[in-house]
Amino acid sequence: MCRWLAYSGTPIKLEELLLKREHSLIDQSLHSRMGATTTNGDGFGVGWYDGGETPRVYRSTHPSWNDRNLKELAAGISSPLFFAHIRASTGSAIQETNTHPVRYGKWLWMHNGLIRDFPKVHRELVNDIDDTLFNSIEGTTDSETMFYLALTFGLEDDPIGAVERMVGFVEETGRSHGVEQPIQMTIATSDGTSIYAFRYSSEGDSRSLYFSTRMDVLQAHYPELTELAGLSDETRVVVSEPLGDLAGAWNEVPEAHVGIVQPGQDELRPFTPRR
Amino acid sequence: MCRWLAYSGTPIKLEELLLKREHSLIDQSLHSRMGATTTNGDGFGVGWYDGGETPRVYRSTHPSWNDRNLKELAAGISSPLFFAHIRASTGSAIQETNTHPVRYGKWLWMHNGLIRDFPKVHRELVNDIDDTLFNSIEGTTDSETMFYLALTFGLEDDPIGAVERMVGFVEETGRSHGVEQPIQMTIATSDGTSIYAFRYSSEGDSRSLYFSTRMDVLQAHYPELTELAGLSDETRVVVSEPLGDLAGAWNEVPEAHVGIVQPGQDELRPFTPRR
Amino acid sequence: MCRWLAYSGTPIKLEELLLKREHSLIDQSLHSRMGATTTNGDGFGVGWYDGGETPRVYRSTHPSWNDRNLKELAAGISSPLFFAHIRASTGSAIQETNTHPVRYGKWLWMHNGLIRDFPKVHRELVNDIDDTLFNSIEGTTDSETMFYLALTFGLEDDPIGAVERMVGFVEETGRSHGVEQPIQMTIATSDGTSIYAFRYSSEGDSRSLYFSTRMDVLQAHYPELTELAGLSDETRVVVSEPLGDLAGAWNEVPEAHVGIVQPGQDELRPFTPRR
Amino acid sequence: MCRWLAYSGTPIKLEELLLKREHSLIDQSLHSRMGATTTNGDGFGVGWYDGGETPRVYRSTHPSWNDRNLKELAAGISSPLFFAHIRASTGSAIQETNTHPVRYGKWLWMHNGLIRDFPKVHRELVNDIDDTLFNSIEGTTDSETMFYLALTFGLEDDPIGAVERMVGFVEETGRSHGVEQPIQMTIATSDGTSIYAFRYSSEGDSRSLYFSTRMDVLQAHYPELTELAGLSDETRVVVSEPLGDLAGAWNEVPEAHVGIVQPGQDELRPFTPRR
Repeated sequence: MCRWLAYSGTPIKLEELLLKREHSLIDQSLHSRMGATTTNGDGFGVGWYDGGETPRVYRSTHPSWNDRNLKELAAGISSPLFFAHIRASTGSAIQETNTHPVRYGKWLWMHNGLIRDFPKVHRELVNDIDDTLFNSIEGTTDSETMFYLALTFGLEDDPIGAVERMVGFVEETGRSHGVEQPIQMTIATSDGTSIYAFRYSSEGDSRSLYFSTRMDVLQAHYPELTELAGLSDETRVVVSEPLGDLAGAWNEVPEAHVGIVQPGQDELRPFTPRR
Repeated sequence: MCRWLAYSGTPIKLEELLLKREHSLIDQSLHSRMGATTTNGDGFGVGWYDGGETPRVYRSTHPSWNDRNLKELAAGISSPLFFAHIRASTGSAIQETNTHPVRYGKWLWMHNGLIRDFPKVHRELVNDIDDTLFNSIEGTTDSETMFYLALTFGLEDDPIGAVERMVGFVEETGRSHGVEQPIQMTIATSDGTSIYAFRYSSEGDSRSLYFSTRMDVLQAHYPELTELAGLSDETRVVVSEPLGDLAGAWNEVPEAHVGIVQPGQDELRPFTPRR
Repeated sequence: MCRWLAYSGTPIKLEELLLKREHSLIDQSLHSRMGATTTNGDGFGVGWYDGGETPRVYRSTHPSWNDRNLKELAAGISSPLFFAHIRASTGSAIQETNTHPVRYGKWLWMHNGLIRDFPKVHRELVNDIDDTLFNSIEGTTDSETMFYLALTFGLEDDPIGAVERMVGFVEETGRSHGVEQPIQMTIATSDGTSIYAFRYSSEGDSRSLYFSTRMDVLQAHYPELTELAGLSDETRVVVSEPLGDLAGAWNEVPEAHVGIVQPGQDELRPFTPRR
Repeated sequence: MCRWLAYSGTPIKLEELLLKREHSLIDQSLHSRMGATTTNGDGFGVGWYDGGETPRVYRSTHPSWNDRNLKELAAGISSPLFFAHIRASTGSAIQETNTHPVRYGKWLWMHNGLIRDFPKVHRELVNDIDDTLFNSIEGTTDSETMFYLALTFGLEDDPIGAVERMVGFVEETGRSHGVEQPIQMTIATSDGTSIYAFRYSSEGDSRSLYFSTRMDVLQAHYPELTELAGLSDETRVVVSEPLGDLAGAWNEVPEAHVGIVQPGQDELRPFTPRR
């Protein structure tokens, strides 16, 4: 399907994670090891917070590996909190409005996975999106529908609760149409301060998701790694698959859990869909 | 807004009308004389019937004047019935799924104009689209919404009646939201046999629309014009603005009328929205 | 690097070979089995002869697997002789003018492979291109340089001799700069009547190349295969890798050979670079 | 042909000049008042210095007026020295490598105008480009050829002298082929510290070029203009045509002159081609 990464911490250039790692996100666009597809070449996007009222977004329908502008921007843009996503379409059109991250106000959203038999439930799901949000929908993906449902269910006030309600609603709707395992997802969303990273699937066998070890621990283990020097203790990366093979650096998000990367202590909690 | 042309008659290469006329459609993309905007550079599309079950469509987000592939295809493709459209966006995203012509089954549809205050009525209009059609919607334009409403109202069986009901519904919905002049349109639609060309606006001041004079009459007037030789008597072009200045060649479609280009005698009838 | 196919025979729709085979060219764009890279997503092109003075070309920078226009055109265009190519860039920019096939007059040209250390020899090679051809160069690839050198050396009059001289010149130039194995190539070129398909590399270990078995023989072996019915005895496909697993259908072009698909008896000859 | 702007001074967001002025560069892409063409829709580019070793470049083949990424980046990127360019092709292909600014090392270059009868002189001009620069050529425009000739003639050490020699060489070469007025140009080039802005044409009737009045003078005249507050005295804009109608704000660069925007006193000098 797709691969993504979310970063929070000491401001770094986007290219540090998109291009310079051994198994960087760009490398994953051609050689994903853990994804549902090896190639993720159906467009990409980056979203970054730079202190303005809303995050900035750069999205393209080209494969990330051959987009020159991405290399320029990744070398030119620094941010303390950014998202990046490479897409492998499950059917909807290749257009910028179907790439991730999707933005609404100060919120970014990106998704790997799918709503199974989406055409069967698409209209019912859209029908529940709030009137005030409807005209903001620009694409046709299941991912964007999930975002606007989560916003409808209160994402801006209670992100985890809203996603739990969104997933509960998607599962209920799918099952009412005979879809046994309606949803498969890893999702990241942020308001510019915290990152919420979800791993869940109806079948209990979710796409891979990892978070990096506390930076002070990593730095103590690997004092010789200059790229880690200068990064704050709170610096954290959440990724579909590890960016390299550094022992002890990557930890799997458990099945049906949500991780919260936030100022102060980060958290990892069970995730339960509800209605 | 946009410019378009529709052709029916002796099979010709698309380039004859897209490129080779004095004021060809490509010329209109940079120098429209009668359009709401001089430049129509927000993508384009062509659709053509070639005897297959459905028409073929080539659409692009590039300006038509600099798209090399269009020149190649226009020189390579002949058809007895084809549509071409150049877009000037009134706000929705520049993506292939927002260009025209839109296709459903054997039907093509293209539009110049707008639904005024579309965000105010968008959801209500979409709500009336039939369930079996909903998942075929790929873009976000008012034009595509109009097409799927017309299909919902029976376009495939009664094209003119369906468009009358669609316009009546759009006007009613718009007015219920305080929009005084809800719709402005010239529309062409076809099933591969007939072309239906509508000119209408709530304010009674519609965008320009012309149809060509009967070919046998033109040939009698201009026996020296080799490009007219060999074209059947029934050959007809409908255009947003004339493709040249040939006296007697172009006739305005009257306000609130629909023209039907069909095997046998063509027709011109008054057009009245209804509920 | 790249993958390509060349077809000559009974006119068929492009989609028959680009899309409908088990291991069609589009399938090879994501899952090449024999190519230097698994993914060939850096643009594509098709070129076809339709009886006009020059062949038509449609080229795009998008991956072939997600380009909707390609699907439309492949379903809409029939031709008795066509080329198709999917690109994996070895470094030069992703732009239409760097995709294949390249066209000059009635000739098409496409290439899989590379000139090693091309930057070392690029200028010297370009210096030998004829003045009358220089302004026709539009891109920056080694492949296009090879084409214009072959044209300079007489491709239009003696295709095989010209390619032999081109390869000899590239090898001589490369070796004068210390490049031990200067060229790796499979090449197809055509004037609309014959196809010349070359397999050669300085190291004697060339990229894969196959040609299809005589159609009457295949039809006799597989009388049940409806897709073969109606194809003339002379129908022939040359491909980077087989389009399926039909036993007896595909024959390897031997190392350092050129195949000639032409009216009457096809030929297979040794290929020897010369100066 | 094209329109461009160059900015040096207090760091500002690119959108201030690209989007927010009354007659911003984006507005000029649809409604140029002084350009050779009204529409400049054949791609665009921005280049900006951000303290790194080389400037960053974002270029696209889409019209600037409908490119969403440009709006995002123009809102997200601040710079003390940046270039922006909108293109109207005079014939060469629409591809990123033919858009401006062109970059070599720390130098940016952009051009409005043309080398007349470029195909007649293209090869001779390219032949004089230094071997060490040849492989850096990526596109096929006259503008890029001029840049690499200027680099060959010493742009990095003596920018004005090198451009004088480049123009002298182009004129000499053109005239040897019977071209009476070989060159028409406004050019901006920068090393990240100074901007050199040239206005010249063989016929003594060059494309328009303006520079802004000293900022302290403007601020004194217009104390109420908040957008001028906070800008350093040395802040300067050079533009193909004024960004608005503020009286006293814009001064024409005289025919055959070069302006130097630099730390300390800016300069305006006569420009004379030489061999």
